[in-house]
Amino acid sequence: MGRKGLDYEDLNENVKKVQYAVRGELYLRASELQKEGKRIIFTNVGNPHALGQKPLTFPRQVVALCQAPFLLDDPNVGLIFPADAIARAKHYLAMAPGGLGAYSDSRGIPGVRKEVAEFIQRRDGYPSDPELIYLTDGASKGVMQMLNAIIRNGRDGILVPVPQYPLYSAAISLFGGSLVPYYLDEEANWGLDLVNTRQSVAAARSNGITIRAMVIINPGNPTGQCLSEANLKEILNFCYQENLVLLADEVYQQNVYQDERPFISSRKVLFDMGGPISREVQLVSFHTVSKGYWGECGQRGGYFEMTNIPPKTVDEIYKVASIALSPNVPGQIFMGLMMSPPKPGDISYPKFATESKSILDSLRRRAQIMTDGFNSCRNVVCNFTEGAMYSFPQIRLPQRAMDTARSAGKEPDVFYCLKLLEATGISTVPGSGFGQKEGVFHLRTTILPAEEDMPAIMSSFKKFNDSFMEQYQDYSKL
Amino acid sequence: MGRKGLDYEDLNENVKKVQYAVRGELYLRASELQKEGKRIIFTNVGNPHALGQKPLTFPRQVVALCQAPFLLDDPNVGLIFPADAIARAKHYLAMAPGGLGAYSDSRGIPGVRKEVAEFIQRRDGYPSDPELIYLTDGASKGVMQMLNAIIRNGRDGILVPVPQYPLYSAAISLFGGSLVPYYLDEEANWGLDLVNTRQSVAAARSNGITIRAMVIINPGNPTGQCLSEANLKEILNFCYQENLVLLADEVYQQNVYQDERPFISSRKVLFDMGGPISREVQLVSFHTVSKGYWGECGQRGGYFEMTNIPPKTVDEIYKVASIALSPNVPGQIFMGLMMSPPKPGDISYPKFATESKSILDSLRRRAQIMTDGFNSCRNVVCNFTEGAMYSFPQIRLPQRAMDTARSAGKEPDVFYCLKLLEATGISTVPGSGFGQKEGVFHLRTTILPAEEDMPAIMSSFKKFNDSFMEQYQDYSKL
Repeated sequence: MGRKGLDYEDLNENVKKVQYAVRGELYLRASELQKEGKRIIFTNVGNPHALGQKPLTFPRQVVALCQAPFLLDDPNVGLIFPADAIARAKHYLAMAPGGLGAYSDSRGIPGVRKEVAEFIQRRDGYPSDPELIYLTDGASKGVMQMLNAIIRNGRDGILVPVPQYPLYSAAISLFGGSLVPYYLDEEANWGLDLVNTRQSVAAARSNGITIRAMVIINPGNPTGQCLSEANLKEILNFCYQENLVLLADEVYQQNVYQDERPFISSRKVLFDMGGPISREVQLVSFHTVSKGYWGECGQRGGYFEMTNIPPKTVDEIYKVASIALSPNVPGQIFMGLMMSPPKPGDISYPKFATESKSILDSLRRRAQIMTDGFNSCRNVVCNFTEGAMYSFPQIRLPQRAMDTARSAGKEPDVFYCLKLLEATGISTVPGSGFGQKEGVFHLRTTILPAEEDMPAIMSSFKKFNDSFMEQYQDYSKL
Repeated sequence: MGRKGLDYEDLNENVKKVQYAVRGELYLRASELQKEGKRIIFTNVGNPHALGQKPLTFPRQVVALCQAPFLLDDPNVGLIFPADAIARAKHYLAMAPGGLGAYSDSRGIPGVRKEVAEFIQRRDGYPSDPELIYLTDGASKGVMQMLNAIIRNGRDGILVPVPQYPLYSAAISLFGGSLVPYYLDEEANWGLDLVNTRQSVAAARSNGITIRAMVIINPGNPTGQCLSEANLKEILNFCYQENLVLLADEVYQQNVYQDERPFISSRKVLFDMGGPISREVQLVSFHTVSKGYWGECGQRGGYFEMTNIPPKTVDEIYKVASIALSPNVPGQIFMGLMMSPPKPGDISYPKFATESKSILDSLRRRAQIMTDGFNSCRNVVCNFTEGAMYSFPQIRLPQRAMDTARSAGKEPDVFYCLKLLEATGISTVPGSGFGQKEGVFHLRTTILPAEEDMPAIMSSFKKFNDSFMEQYQDYSKL
């Protein structure tokens, strides 16, 4: 027999080239250990509910009623659902002819897109057009749609922060483009340094690459920094000068754990700048129901908003979205609810506010516990998690550990993370999955384990780390 | 200013090449007319709930409870939910740690994949391995994943039936492959003729195309035929001889409206054949919760099952699926419920059975009303809808109509369908969106309008058609 279409050797090379560390070797080994009965703490993915975070009650009540609209006619419905949840369910069902079981428009339900536009206007102080907002099955799908539209061939480059969330490297590989890294500066709290970025661009161009877009992740994943307004202005100026699309991954905009640098949207900064920049920089901003204090990852709800994108391109994006008919409708309702949560005076407001505050306050405390815990460990240094859901400590590995790892055919950080996993059940992602400077090693963990488990986890980490460092310490240097 | 990344002129050419007629010119015009207040009957998409089909009660109860798990502790829950729905919700929540708000494994929840495997085994009489079943956001997403893995470049060809569901042509364009058509034979009830298929293959090969996979849609979309066992055997033999992956779109397997040719899965026929064929033909089968008597399009639930696919390829498909983290979890629960619906003896069985039968019986009657209606019209001939959800009548347009259309810059069938839309509000898809033989014209309509509206719709169609034919009749031939 000859070769067949799905033989590994004959697959699309771009598919084979994709690397996706968040669910890579470490995750697979953790899954095996779990099958063998070991208790695993999955901190590899920002998946809050999987680690015990309870869903917010109000949105779940509304979506449950939308799933079972016949309950609205049940005389007992008022016994288990509050009146404002019932009213809100009717509001969304009126927007979605056929209910949750009907395909919506491929861009999403018009009424929900209007709620998104209203949210953006309240947030930024500038009007937003629902026709330029498309709902998606989570933010990742939106990012993939845009990269697919932009990337034409292997000479098209996308500027991506390193360390980066590997969605970007994976999607750029899949669509056959070139990732052009710009390095975030760990010593400057993972700030973006445009001098260095210009050097990356120049180097890529001298290799025949056309830079077409720039990705920012704000707050940062895996690095946790919040970009300052000044930094965002520099970035927008740079995109203007270089004719780059700015892809602004703002999925962690609700996840901010300090007061000095609140989240500011790229779009607000763009419009504040005024002049030709504000009319010409092509900007696509992404958001999701998976993060924030919602954490509704499994529902797959998200949106992207297009600013200064030509109408013909907007139509092309619509056409491609329509191939898969529509984003899932329950996820769209979650997006609508996130955009217009209960307001003071609503029956469900006090509970919603208490639940939200409790989650956010606890995340803030956990960010601190984790940073402090890492910084108390031998050979570990860690920037504070200003935002997002991750801690990204640098692990200063002794030469002997690096040599042992490489003779076992592993990257040193992979070797360290595997040992950590076997010893403690803590499942992290090695820094090499996100990119890091040559010879510098990290790991990424979420800050999501339950707050009451945090001290034990950090002490188990410290015990492992300090004995690992002891075992591999560099005697020659003593 | 220079060109920018999202300027239309600089988009990925494959994105621009995509055509998707189901939501194309006709759909856009219909949406405009609707905004202007005209009553539109959307028969362009197989979207049953949008046309008034009620969701099945039991699965909605279960998913509503999964969305709001706190209801399970409410003392009043038994007043509005039956005990078996409550038990089933607990069953799924136990399978999905973190509930509907947590990302699942990127392949889907293991317990649901096991339910899919058990369904397949009951259906076909051969065991099925849950590890080779991946859950997806609707079947379309699964088809796109497989085509993306198979297509390497523009010389890779995919055999697609013509007329075809435009998902295939759109996805093949998007991934930069070549669609190689094989024509279904309208005179033989849209049967597949392998002699003709071999000619298509030979012609493509002589143009330097490597044929890598073959798509079948059974029951057919838009053509509505059910493939016979003999036909499926021929197809599998052909794929074996030519080393083609068979992509079997079997999303309409519950939608069969005659008893002579029940649905038989490609997988069952493959295993019935035995010998090397059954061990070597690479087969991927697709299913969904969007069709059947469920019609839960908006939930975006689906699966694909891989047969005889090498393990390394299965791993690659997993890796790519993991980029977008997981299919939506509520859609996965719907898939599980479709695979294991209430059984005789369960509290909810009588209601579930009554609802299902009523939908299926009505679809069967509507298929007949529609076929008969079209065949009563002047210059219209239509095969009976044996399965699926569509009627695909041939419209024999007079020369004068064709000339008028072309002088208006329209394909003749687009011209006809636009006139139909303006006159009656019936929104169909022109046959050119699916492919048809040169000089032969069709339209596709779903059989989904409410049964009570059907006589009025068909009479409105007939009135339009017969006066159109009168207006454009070819006087020279009188």
